[in-house]
Amino acid sequence: MEVLSVLNLGDFAQVFSKMGMFPVFDLAYYIVSILYLKYEPGSVEVSRRSPVASWLCAMLYCFGSYILADIMLGSSPIDYFQHNSHILLASAVWYLIFYCPLNLFYKCVAFLPVKLVLVALKEVVRTRKIAAGVHHAFHAYHHGFFIMVIVGYVKGSGVALISNFEQLLRGVWRPETNEILNMSFPTKASLYGAILFTLQETHYLPVSKSTLILIFTLFMATSKAR
Amino acid sequence: MEVLSVLNLGDFAQVFSKMGMFPVFDLAYYIVSILYLKYEPGSVEVSRRSPVASWLCAMLYCFGSYILADIMLGSSPIDYFQHNSHILLASAVWYLIFYCPLNLFYKCVAFLPVKLVLVALKEVVRTRKIAAGVHHAFHAYHHGFFIMVIVGYVKGSGVALISNFEQLLRGVWRPETNEILNMSFPTKASLYGAILFTLQETHYLPVSKSTLILIFTLFMATSKAR
Amino acid sequence: MEVLSVLNLGDFAQVFSKMGMFPVFDLAYYIVSILYLKYEPGSVEVSRRSPVASWLCAMLYCFGSYILADIMLGSSPIDYFQHNSHILLASAVWYLIFYCPLNLFYKCVAFLPVKLVLVALKEVVRTRKIAAGVHHAFHAYHHGFFIMVIVGYVKGSGVALISNFEQLLRGVWRPETNEILNMSFPTKASLYGAILFTLQETHYLPVSKSTLILIFTLFMATSKAR
Repeated sequence: MEVLSVLNLGDFAQVFSKMGMFPVFDLAYYIVSILYLKYEPGSVEVSRRSPVASWLCAMLYCFGSYILADIMLGSSPIDYFQHNSHILLASAVWYLIFYCPLNLFYKCVAFLPVKLVLVALKEVVRTRKIAAGVHHAFHAYHHGFFIMVIVGYVKGSGVALISNFEQLLRGVWRPETNEILNMSFPTKASLYGAILFTLQETHYLPVSKSTLILIFTLFMATSKAR
Repeated sequence: MEVLSVLNLGDFAQVFSKMGMFPVFDLAYYIVSILYLKYEPGSVEVSRRSPVASWLCAMLYCFGSYILADIMLGSSPIDYFQHNSHILLASAVWYLIFYCPLNLFYKCVAFLPVKLVLVALKEVVRTRKIAAGVHHAFHAYHHGFFIMVIVGYVKGSGVALISNFEQLLRGVWRPETNEILNMSFPTKASLYGAILFTLQETHYLPVSKSTLILIFTLFMATSKAR
Repeated sequence: MEVLSVLNLGDFAQVFSKMGMFPVFDLAYYIVSILYLKYEPGSVEVSRRSPVASWLCAMLYCFGSYILADIMLGSSPIDYFQHNSHILLASAVWYLIFYCPLNLFYKCVAFLPVKLVLVALKEVVRTRKIAAGVHHAFHAYHHGFFIMVIVGYVKGSGVALISNFEQLLRGVWRPETNEILNMSFPTKASLYGAILFTLQETHYLPVSKSTLILIFTLFMATSKAR
């Protein structure tokens, strides 16, 4: 990548791709995800009627990508729930967004400038998840191109792919549509991202992974912010 | 537990928690479970139209907790079906409840005094399943508190948690409700039980496991019998 | 089997049961499977609106039996997707059947004499899948008779058993029926086949496996062709 070396961005991409996600970026991911859950019609009533169902939905929104990827690779679907601190952090966010007095927390994070920053941070996590999913699948199946794309795709899309069943948990059933039949932008971008990262992982794309992570993150963050 | 030692119940609790469940207690569990299946509207017609679907539903009622726990821990969902004697016993109960001439078997076990005893025995099995589920999850994830609670919970609740899909097998679809949105008493108690047994397993609850099993069984059996 | 030895069919059965399935037989399997997908009302519109959903449905039609068997035995459900050549072949068939100009490919393979041959070849694959499924389950559970029957059954029936969820992917939801409640002929025959192969595998049926494969294939091919 000539442009990157001219701009001296190679080192920056390297540092950026090694940066830890916990807790700042993960926190932004949880906040934005559970915000989208609160936007769903009926979700506030569910949180009053059955906190357990509401909490489960929130966990699916935050960790759906891990659950799906673990299922795809034949591991325990709740394997990620061993990370108690992540679950507790997401649970705290869920509690604050749904039950905070005066709806204060919700009003703060749904305030547009704040939300734009959080959404951008969320896209950083999404890109890293796609790359990690492809890498994980590559380790299990060295020549399984389709498996790499599928795992990267579910890591990027997360709960969207099982939205029918997430809605069912809240007593809502809309069989006439689903995220694969009518792809939203993040789902479509995750698919393209998964293909790109698979090509990178199998050395068909002559780009370093850190550069690809940087470019894809920038693309996602700016697309979502617009 | 001062009370227990005064009453000399420590030894009794020990013996009680080591007692084998097969075949007497398991038989009671199968009878009560399949009895509840027969109470479901339309289940008798299904048993006439498609014995395979009826048998599968009966197996879900009897072994749903094992199936769910195996899925949660990433094992084969039909792993428990290697125990041929258990499957044959449950199948015999299914056959007698649905196809016995003059409905004799059904009338006997649905007779209130008999049913009360069977229900009490079933609760013994349920408590043991919760404890075993938590213990099993503890072995796989030593610090996975959430995983222990989830596995104990699905072991206690069993088919109730997947009732939407069990009904679908019989051609019934009621998306507007599910067992998590509207928890019944056994499901709620299983959740509390799973939390208690997790606290015990991780030594946050200063009670021996046999004592906890005894107390929780007594609580469940008396609550259900009332 | 006296008859077979008189007719000198033992050697033929042996050769028949060792014959490679890829690519000729597998190709026939993919063509007939995706043909049935095209017969489904609305599937052509889905292929125009969302090629990804259509491709996923085609993959479920072609590889549903592997996916289900892998789930039943606790492996990765997309394990079979590591065979890139099989996936690419099935994808090419999907592309030709749905997008070939003038619908030429579809008209060729749906032409009755051609289709009859393809259907017969498909039944060869189905029988081999049942035998392989039972054998695979036997290796994992030596005394798990029920597991062997279940795995052989899902290997023979494939996508039919999850048709509700395959339809959901295309935005169609018909909860009032499913393949277990109203068994079609291939599903029913797969169940009987799975039982026969389980009896053979556990030496309760005094027939060699190659003979059983030959007889069952002939039975299936002639039944479907009629």
